Amino acid sequence: MKKAIFLFCICFTMLLNVHAQLMKEPTVGSEKRASFVLNAPDAKEVKLLNLSDDMALGAKEYNFEKSSDGTWTLTTNPCRPGLHYFAISVDGAKIDYPNSSHYFGWGKWTSMIEIPDDQLDFYLPKDVPHGEVRQHYYYSKTTRTTRKCLVYTPPGYDKDLKQKYPVLYLQHGAGESELGWTMQGKVNFILDNLIAEGKSKPFIVVMDNGYAPRPGIEAEHQFNPGGSDNLFEDLVTKELIPMIDASYRTLSDQKNRAIAGLSMGGGQAMRIGFNHPELFGTVASFSGAGGRANFDLETAYNGLFKDAAKFNQTYKLFFVGCGTLESMYPNVKGMYDTLKEHGIHTAFSGPIGSHEWQVWRVHLYDFAQLVFK
Amino acid sequence: MKKAIFLFCICFTMLLNVHAQLMKEPTVGSEKRASFVLNAPDAKEVKLLNLSDDMALGAKEYNFEKSSDGTWTLTTNPCRPGLHYFAISVDGAKIDYPNSSHYFGWGKWTSMIEIPDDQLDFYLPKDVPHGEVRQHYYYSKTTRTTRKCLVYTPPGYDKDLKQKYPVLYLQHGAGESELGWTMQGKVNFILDNLIAEGKSKPFIVVMDNGYAPRPGIEAEHQFNPGGSDNLFEDLVTKELIPMIDASYRTLSDQKNRAIAGLSMGGGQAMRIGFNHPELFGTVASFSGAGGRANFDLETAYNGLFKDAAKFNQTYKLFFVGCGTLESMYPNVKGMYDTLKEHGIHTAFSGPIGSHEWQVWRVHLYDFAQLVFK
Repeated sequence: MKKAIFLFCICFTMLLNVHAQLMKEPTVGSEKRASFVLNAPDAKEVKLLNLSDDMALGAKEYNFEKSSDGTWTLTTNPCRPGLHYFAISVDGAKIDYPNSSHYFGWGKWTSMIEIPDDQLDFYLPKDVPHGEVRQHYYYSKTTRTTRKCLVYTPPGYDKDLKQKYPVLYLQHGAGESELGWTMQGKVNFILDNLIAEGKSKPFIVVMDNGYAPRPGIEAEHQFNPGGSDNLFEDLVTKELIPMIDASYRTLSDQKNRAIAGLSMGGGQAMRIGFNHPELFGTVASFSGAGGRANFDLETAYNGLFKDAAKFNQTYKLFFVGCGTLESMYPNVKGMYDTLKEHGIHTAFSGPIGSHEWQVWRVHLYDFAQLVFK
Repeated sequence: MKKAIFLFCICFTMLLNVHAQLMKEPTVGSEKRASFVLNAPDAKEVKLLNLSDDMALGAKEYNFEKSSDGTWTLTTNPCRPGLHYFAISVDGAKIDYPNSSHYFGWGKWTSMIEIPDDQLDFYLPKDVPHGEVRQHYYYSKTTRTTRKCLVYTPPGYDKDLKQKYPVLYLQHGAGESELGWTMQGKVNFILDNLIAEGKSKPFIVVMDNGYAPRPGIEAEHQFNPGGSDNLFEDLVTKELIPMIDASYRTLSDQKNRAIAGLSMGGGQAMRIGFNHPELFGTVASFSGAGGRANFDLETAYNGLFKDAAKFNQTYKLFFVGCGTLESMYPNVKGMYDTLKEHGIHTAFSGPIGSHEWQVWRVHLYDFAQLVFK
C-alpha cells in the first residue's frame, strides 16, 4: 500500500521541489546583517528601502549589487533587533520582497524581516501551555458588514468551564489590521509565557479592526479614525463589548475591562476609554499619547487629570509607553512624570527603540503584568 | 473631551491618508475584466504572469502599457470566476503585485485576485450564525517544534457544552500552508452557510500544515511529502488526533472521523486514511487521486478496492473530486465510474474549472453534505 501511494505522489514531490527553490527568506548572519537575493536579469537598479526609522536596518536605503548570473544581492549593515517593515525598488517600482514573510501594514500586505534579539525571548513560542487565537465573525449593524475580530483565550479556557476572565481590548496602528497584534506582535506567545511564569493573570484579549467606516462611504474616506466617518467608538461600546460578553466567559464589570492600543490605536484607546468610564477601568496608550510639548495638567484631555483622587477612583491605571528613539519620547516621558508626581495611577514603559513592533511587544509585556493585578 | 482627543489624533489621520492612497487592489469591471496599476517610472517592461491555468485570467500573460506619468496600466480579457494566483514581472524580476491581497501559496506569500462568480455565493460570508476558526498551538515531539493548526468549531460550539462533533482533517496543497483552506478556501463560510440551511451536520475541521520535517533536516529536503523525510503521517496519527480529541468535544470513533485534502493533500489523505482503517471512516481526495490512465480495480492501491463489500464495511465513503478542465479529469472520472459500477461507496464532484481554489470550494461544498450524513 505505502509503495503504491508513494509512486502516485511523485508528481507532487516534483512540483514541490520547484516550490522549495522559491523559498529564499532573507537570512540574518553574523553581527545581525541581513542578506537578500533577487532575480532581476534585466533591471538597471535594485534598492532596499527601509520603511522603519532610518537605522532599523542599518541605513535608510541600500543598493543591491548585480552578479554575472543576473541575480542581485545585498548584505546590510548590522540591524537592530525586532520586526521591521521594508520594500524593494526595482527600476523605480516599489514592491515587496518576493520571498519574505508578509504582514498587513502600510494599508497593504508588506514585507517584514525579523531580526533576532539576543537579550529578549519573551515573545518566542516556548514549550508552555498555549492559549488559542480565535477568528470570531459577527455581523455589525454599525457598518452593515460581516466583521472579524481575533480573540485570545488563555491556556485552560476550555478546561475549567466555570472560570471567568478579565478582558483587554487591544488595537493596532494606522494602516494595520486586526491581524497585527498576533502576526507582528506575538501577543499570544507573550501572554502564554507570562502566564506560565505566573507573572500575569490569565485574561482574554479582543483585537478588532480599528476601521469601522460608515456604510456607503467610499474607501478614500474610510481612513479617518478621529473623524465622523469612523464609527469605531460606537462599534466597540454598543456592539463589540455586548457581543464578547455574550460569547465568552468574561468578568464584565468595569474594573475587569481594559482598553489599549498602539499609535493610532493608542489614540482610540484613550478616546474610547476616557469617554466611557462606566465601561473601562484601565486605559493604555503605546506610542500614542502625550506627543505634544507643554503638557498642562490642568487643561490636558479636557482636565481629566486635574483631580487625581477623582481620576484614581474611576481608573485603576493609565499606562503610557513610548520607545526611547521616538521624537516624541521626551514629551511623553514628561507627561508621565507630571502625572506620576501629581498622584495619578500611572505606569511607564520606555524600551530602546522607535515607532516599531519590538517596542510595542515590550509595552505589552510590561502592561500585561499590571493590568488586572 | 472629544474635541481635545480629536485634535490629538490629527497627526495619525494625516499618516492614514498616505496609507489610503496606497490601497489600490486590482478592480474587476464589466465582463469580469481585471484592471491593474503599477507605479514604475523607470521600468522598461511590466508584465502580468498568470500562475493558474492559461485561461484563468483570460491569457497566459499580458504586457502593461506605460502612461505619460510613469504608471503602467493593464485591463485583462474576461477572467474566469474564482481565486487565481498571479505575479508581476518588472524588467525580468518576478514579484507580487504590491497592492493585492496576499495568500500563502507557491511556497511563499503570493498575489491572488478574486473574480466574483454570478452563479455561486455559497462561500461568501452571510448573516448566519458563524463558527470560529481557532489557531491552536502545540509542541510536537515528532518535529520538535511548536506547530499551529487551525480548528473550525461550528456555530453554537460554546453554547451547548454537552454536544460532541465529528471531525474532518482537511489538508492543503503543495506549497500552501494550514492557512489555505480558510484564507483561500473560505471553508468556514461554506460550512456556516450549509449548516444554516440544514444541508450539513455541524462538524469540527482540523487544518494542520502538511509539512512535518524530520528534526535537523535542512529546508531543501523538507518538501517531500511522499518520502521518508516527511513525518506527517506519524504526526497525524500519533500526535494530532489524540491532541484534538483531548482538546475539543469530538466524537472519536472511526465513523465520525474523516480525512480529506486537495492535490498533494489528497494524496496524503488517501495514504493516511487507507493506511489507518481503524482511525478514518471516510476519505476524500480533491484533484489528487486517480490521475494515471488505465486504472485497474484489481491492483490499484494495492488491491484496496477489489472486494467492494469488504471496502464498504470499513469505509463509509471514498469521495473523489476533479475540475473538468484538468488534464487528469478523464482518468479521475474513469476511476470513479469503475469504482461506482463495482459497488464501492463513492461520490464524485466535477465542477467546471482547473487545478484551482474555486473547484476545491465546490468539492468541499459537495463533500460536506455527504461526509457525516
